[in-house]
Amino acid sequence: MDFSFDERTEKLRESLGTFVRTRVIPAEPLFAQPAPGPGSSGWGRPAAMAELQREARARGLWNLFMPRRSPHGAGLSALQYAPLAEITGWSPWIAPEALNCAAPDTGNMELLDMFATEEQKRQWLEPLLTASIRSAYCMTEPAVASSDASNIRLRARRDGDHYVLDGRKWWATGAMAPECELLVVLAITDPDAERRRRQSILLVPKDTPGVRVVRGLSVFGFTDSAHGGHAEVHFDGARIPVGSLLGDEGEGARLAQARLGPGRIHHCMRLVGMAERAVELMCARAEERSAFGRPLADHGEVLAWIAEARLRIDQLRLMVLQAAWLIDEVGARAARTEISAIKVAAPPTAEWVIDRAIQVHGAAGMAQDLPLAMLWAQARGLRFADGPDEVHRMVLGRRELDRQRRRRTGEDT
Amino acid sequence: MDFSFDERTEKLRESLGTFVRTRVIPAEPLFAQPAPGPGSSGWGRPAAMAELQREARARGLWNLFMPRRSPHGAGLSALQYAPLAEITGWSPWIAPEALNCAAPDTGNMELLDMFATEEQKRQWLEPLLTASIRSAYCMTEPAVASSDASNIRLRARRDGDHYVLDGRKWWATGAMAPECELLVVLAITDPDAERRRRQSILLVPKDTPGVRVVRGLSVFGFTDSAHGGHAEVHFDGARIPVGSLLGDEGEGARLAQARLGPGRIHHCMRLVGMAERAVELMCARAEERSAFGRPLADHGEVLAWIAEARLRIDQLRLMVLQAAWLIDEVGARAARTEISAIKVAAPPTAEWVIDRAIQVHGAAGMAQDLPLAMLWAQARGLRFADGPDEVHRMVLGRRELDRQRRRRTGEDT
Amino acid sequence: MDFSFDERTEKLRESLGTFVRTRVIPAEPLFAQPAPGPGSSGWGRPAAMAELQREARARGLWNLFMPRRSPHGAGLSALQYAPLAEITGWSPWIAPEALNCAAPDTGNMELLDMFATEEQKRQWLEPLLTASIRSAYCMTEPAVASSDASNIRLRARRDGDHYVLDGRKWWATGAMAPECELLVVLAITDPDAERRRRQSILLVPKDTPGVRVVRGLSVFGFTDSAHGGHAEVHFDGARIPVGSLLGDEGEGARLAQARLGPGRIHHCMRLVGMAERAVELMCARAEERSAFGRPLADHGEVLAWIAEARLRIDQLRLMVLQAAWLIDEVGARAARTEISAIKVAAPPTAEWVIDRAIQVHGAAGMAQDLPLAMLWAQARGLRFADGPDEVHRMVLGRRELDRQRRRRTGEDT
Amino acid sequence: MDFSFDERTEKLRESLGTFVRTRVIPAEPLFAQPAPGPGSSGWGRPAAMAELQREARARGLWNLFMPRRSPHGAGLSALQYAPLAEITGWSPWIAPEALNCAAPDTGNMELLDMFATEEQKRQWLEPLLTASIRSAYCMTEPAVASSDASNIRLRARRDGDHYVLDGRKWWATGAMAPECELLVVLAITDPDAERRRRQSILLVPKDTPGVRVVRGLSVFGFTDSAHGGHAEVHFDGARIPVGSLLGDEGEGARLAQARLGPGRIHHCMRLVGMAERAVELMCARAEERSAFGRPLADHGEVLAWIAEARLRIDQLRLMVLQAAWLIDEVGARAARTEISAIKVAAPPTAEWVIDRAIQVHGAAGMAQDLPLAMLWAQARGLRFADGPDEVHRMVLGRRELDRQRRRRTGEDT
Repeated sequence: MDFSFDERTEKLRESLGTFVRTRVIPAEPLFAQPAPGPGSSGWGRPAAMAELQREARARGLWNLFMPRRSPHGAGLSALQYAPLAEITGWSPWIAPEALNCAAPDTGNMELLDMFATEEQKRQWLEPLLTASIRSAYCMTEPAVASSDASNIRLRARRDGDHYVLDGRKWWATGAMAPECELLVVLAITDPDAERRRRQSILLVPKDTPGVRVVRGLSVFGFTDSAHGGHAEVHFDGARIPVGSLLGDEGEGARLAQARLGPGRIHHCMRLVGMAERAVELMCARAEERSAFGRPLADHGEVLAWIAEARLRIDQLRLMVLQAAWLIDEVGARAARTEISAIKVAAPPTAEWVIDRAIQVHGAAGMAQDLPLAMLWAQARGLRFADGPDEVHRMVLGRRELDRQRRRRTGEDT
Repeated sequence: MDFSFDERTEKLRESLGTFVRTRVIPAEPLFAQPAPGPGSSGWGRPAAMAELQREARARGLWNLFMPRRSPHGAGLSALQYAPLAEITGWSPWIAPEALNCAAPDTGNMELLDMFATEEQKRQWLEPLLTASIRSAYCMTEPAVASSDASNIRLRARRDGDHYVLDGRKWWATGAMAPECELLVVLAITDPDAERRRRQSILLVPKDTPGVRVVRGLSVFGFTDSAHGGHAEVHFDGARIPVGSLLGDEGEGARLAQARLGPGRIHHCMRLVGMAERAVELMCARAEERSAFGRPLADHGEVLAWIAEARLRIDQLRLMVLQAAWLIDEVGARAARTEISAIKVAAPPTAEWVIDRAIQVHGAAGMAQDLPLAMLWAQARGLRFADGPDEVHRMVLGRRELDRQRRRRTGEDT
Repeated sequence: MDFSFDERTEKLRESLGTFVRTRVIPAEPLFAQPAPGPGSSGWGRPAAMAELQREARARGLWNLFMPRRSPHGAGLSALQYAPLAEITGWSPWIAPEALNCAAPDTGNMELLDMFATEEQKRQWLEPLLTASIRSAYCMTEPAVASSDASNIRLRARRDGDHYVLDGRKWWATGAMAPECELLVVLAITDPDAERRRRQSILLVPKDTPGVRVVRGLSVFGFTDSAHGGHAEVHFDGARIPVGSLLGDEGEGARLAQARLGPGRIHHCMRLVGMAERAVELMCARAEERSAFGRPLADHGEVLAWIAEARLRIDQLRLMVLQAAWLIDEVGARAARTEISAIKVAAPPTAEWVIDRAIQVHGAAGMAQDLPLAMLWAQARGLRFADGPDEVHRMVLGRRELDRQRRRRTGEDT
Repeated sequence: MDFSFDERTEKLRESLGTFVRTRVIPAEPLFAQPAPGPGSSGWGRPAAMAELQREARARGLWNLFMPRRSPHGAGLSALQYAPLAEITGWSPWIAPEALNCAAPDTGNMELLDMFATEEQKRQWLEPLLTASIRSAYCMTEPAVASSDASNIRLRARRDGDHYVLDGRKWWATGAMAPECELLVVLAITDPDAERRRRQSILLVPKDTPGVRVVRGLSVFGFTDSAHGGHAEVHFDGARIPVGSLLGDEGEGARLAQARLGPGRIHHCMRLVGMAERAVELMCARAEERSAFGRPLADHGEVLAWIAEARLRIDQLRLMVLQAAWLIDEVGARAARTEISAIKVAAPPTAEWVIDRAIQVHGAAGMAQDLPLAMLWAQARGLRFADGPDEVHRMVLGRRELDRQRRRRTGEDT
């Protein structure tokens, strides 16, 4: 295990750190929420985003997320990208997008890069790589427990040269924004196939007749409007040509799985950065404010929180770096236990740190002048992204039982 | 300790339970948030509120909070009111107000009832008792740690027959609404007086020149707009007649203290009700939804959460009832240890239960279709109301040390 | 709900409090552990116990546990007994026995009182009531998960006028002591009967040939030798007359259940008292010791622990009193949800308080000069007594789901 | 950061793993506790220890702990030693000593290696390196909060060519055993000196007249007799020659500090191993035992515990490896923040895992047939070793505040 950052990574960290500190964080007020109410027409990026993107690109901070094997990114390994993703977590609703490194576009671009035809790449990947358009990912459904992917029901029936889509999706992040033109949709193409072969992924233009973006969903009161919100989308007989299939029919489950691994790492690294932002604010406040005759920093409980925060963040970071290193060494599939582990560990760690930071700020910590409430809502939300903690704990528990059984029986050492 | 509910209480519980279940909860969508963005002009009650209030009044569910000694309420003891406040917690942003039992008006009405002159009562208490106007309470200040009340700085200088106010307040709940006409303001009238005699309470018409309601503060993304939000208010040379003083000059600290005790009980009882609403939703969902071949209710972790939720709620309720009973028996001052204790215990209990309920609902638990995210934000916010947990723990710790010392030395048994 | 202590209870509390403070606690060094190693011959009561028992009896503090309906006790209700059991928890390895109110004799006496024949009562109940002999209860078995009572395997085959017992039991508390003459044994009498009718309870003299007390089991290093330890007992063809059956054949499960309810209350009340002892020691130490220039009591973390300890203990006590009151009002069966709830809540509450008290004492808190380590071990052990927490949480969870379902469907209100 | 294990480390891990699995763990019953009661004459090593030590030495597993710079050990770096110390944690009361790598001898040998004169080395270091004698470390005192080292009071007065010692120490681990011949004592030599120059370290033969080993202290009922227990030692006018001084007079505080750093790492690595042993036992049990119709491993709560255990252990190990790596790179002093962090993190992590493992075993988990109760007591005890958590959290909190202040002011980046 070697988690050292090489020279290139160190340079990128410095450059990115400066960018986020001097350009992104000062721009945060321009992205204030809640902007539009649900149903309002105000969804979409503030103009400041295009400006930030131009600058990030000029500084060589563009498409950093793209895996090394792709010709479209910066050629970074997971371990090289990890500390950069952490820095974007200081301002998680702006910085990732400013670098064209924001979910769900990142996962969609990776999918297209790996599995799209040349024609599909021209149509969708190229404009995504330049941030000319945005995309959404339609997996979760309102009527079923989507944590168990086999529950998914949206139907894509073959009808001649077309697929006809019927069903409902929600939590399609980004789909409220006008910039979003592509929906990447997980659908049932063959309900009678063997379990792992029932689903396919389809590339659906958002303006397809029969596709209706119904409304935005809020996350603890935040609409995430500047990022395109989280949409409920209805498909009522929407027809798309057969050529919209990504990869082969029946490969949806496999592709969806491939999409998840690296994305989880990105989320987790950003959570480390979110917690760092919180501890930074917490320390500053603890020294500025006084109560009962001494700075908050001299109150024993506050001091203990700060110590615990540092400890938990450092511990989490090591774990995420290890997972990144493993992905580089053995691939995301072989690293899936470690990826599940950080998926379970990262959100509550960040939640805890942010909650303590809020507490140190008093009621101000919950309001719009500080990023803490938004950071908290985002961290809490990530306990659901890619499956709730409970599912991952179940998976982790079973793997550990297997591992110990193999050791007991002498199969492993 | 006798926590039994007498016949009258049981009848009121039944009547109120029916009202909240059949009238208030069905009206919740009409109070949806976030309605206006900060700065927007959309603050204030939906029309449905007046209708609910008419009906509550007709059912004899009006001004129930008013303490027994007052001629203006239903003549209920704290123990009689406690289970009713719990029921209003099922829908905490509507039900309390529908009964004219919502903070901060309740605390303000109690203050006026106890300390106002006849003239002041005519001007302010009467319209508050009929919900013709609303009021706000201005204590917390943005520039200081208000958990330590001696930090407060808003200045009211005597100038002939007037006081002139200069300074800033925030978290003035309700003040964004047009219905709010009265600000009850804690101010420094004599900075050189002995510590406990520096402050006074003033009754300030919101439309006084020099008073400016600057903006609404959000709580984890929620503006609480239908309830009048949480305002930042600036006082720049605002002049009010000397007769606006509530009680005597220098009595502000004492009056503020008197205002707090019962209010804390109300908050805590509502938190019990909020947790009950969450556990009700959690159980329904756990039986409806299936994952991995069986209902969520059959998953061990979910079942354990439900058990813990019931246990924690029941334990909390007993503690709150005990505090209510003590207030009736010995008064709020003598019951202050028990009141501090529930202030510390109630919000995190409700937070925990609501968080588990959210988790059982998947991402839907965070969005606007369910009341869970709002319940959570409200519960979390109450860890700050009337001073953060840390302060109350400090107070409780010191009292326990005293108590044990007196036992050791034989002073007490 | 009326938890007030009546005059008789208050008098008993005062009398018992004095007895424990002035007689029992000063005698603690005489009961020091670990006295004999496992296998040693040193098990059994120090002489001081008989003296304490004589005195308790003289003070009218004898057999207080016996339920009101029995002619053999003090005629106390569960609610009257609860605060007395709490006081015995201040010194849980001595005080209960000094009053002849210690498990497992209490449960055994209750069983005999309810179900024994006159002959059985003469033989066993009478000497138990005067503490002339001691008894043990043999339920748990080493080879199966006894938390699921249907797993039990010890076999009692009918052979003419006798039962022949074969199998193994352990955690037979008290059985190591020479004073212990009776084993109350749960055995399978009819493996082919309907599930709830397979087991019976048998009264087995410890000196029956074929009964072998094999060894004592320790609890976190403590042998509990002065209380008769916790024995592993083997039954190899032990023959007892048919008249040794308690109640009817096949009623074992029902009797075992009847035995449990009140016993759980006793354990829980004692846990409250154990936590009170810990907080008393913690406060004294926090004021006596200084580090970094001020008493430990002035360190924020310590102060917060003290506050939390008081809060958690008071909350737990209310819950236990409520369960006791319910047992009096509606019987142990109807109160089984509340009994399960305190069974889950009490041990970890006491564990937490005792652990904090240990921490405040530094390493001394773990050693033999203070009762804290023993208190902790006893509290931790009670998470297993009468079934582990997990089983009770499962039961509680299912009951809550039922309750909510009945409310949803309108069956209940 | 490069935590990879090099070839030599991997070979040692394999060799040591085999040794502990095939020789040490099977010998555990021979080291059963509690052997002697306090005051008994049975303290000291079972004969099996000498046999295990011979074998470890033959296998090249001897004095591995000695830092690379010393000629007396295996020349391992902290990072090389860390995974080996982890393996000794599988059986922490036997394996470390079998390798001559057990505290407090390790710390004492390091001190002697660094600061002793040739004569002192001949007298004490050489027999310690061959395990011919054992030693104890006398720092903690019964009368003061020793977490604050400036509280220490044992006095060593200069009297001609001698020091005369008066005072009391306790928690002198190992001193009860006859094999223990050396006491390394922290004493006040100049109470009037500047604060950091008051203390000195003295090498005191245990058989010095005036030195009295009074009694053994137990840790949650365990006497740790096979390891020499934990002694209270009184010094009443004990005279030792001036040449017994280690290093210079007044250097005690500095030497004591030097002793601590690496030792903490060793404790923490062993705690990782202790937790691994617990999770191994927990998994085996969860698959063997059934309740309510299915293996414990299929109960959701148990599965979640197993998952959490794996996650927490892996996270902790990374943190400890990082601290070890830092010690090698920049020295123990520069790594002190990271060392404090693992000191705080390791014991509760191990406690949690062991507690869950106990719970899965039912009451058996607390008794002498399984190592879990002893593992737990040891882990809990380590929350006190080298200062309680609270002190380390305070230190960590202050360092984080400093770090953040330097970043805010631009002093650091």
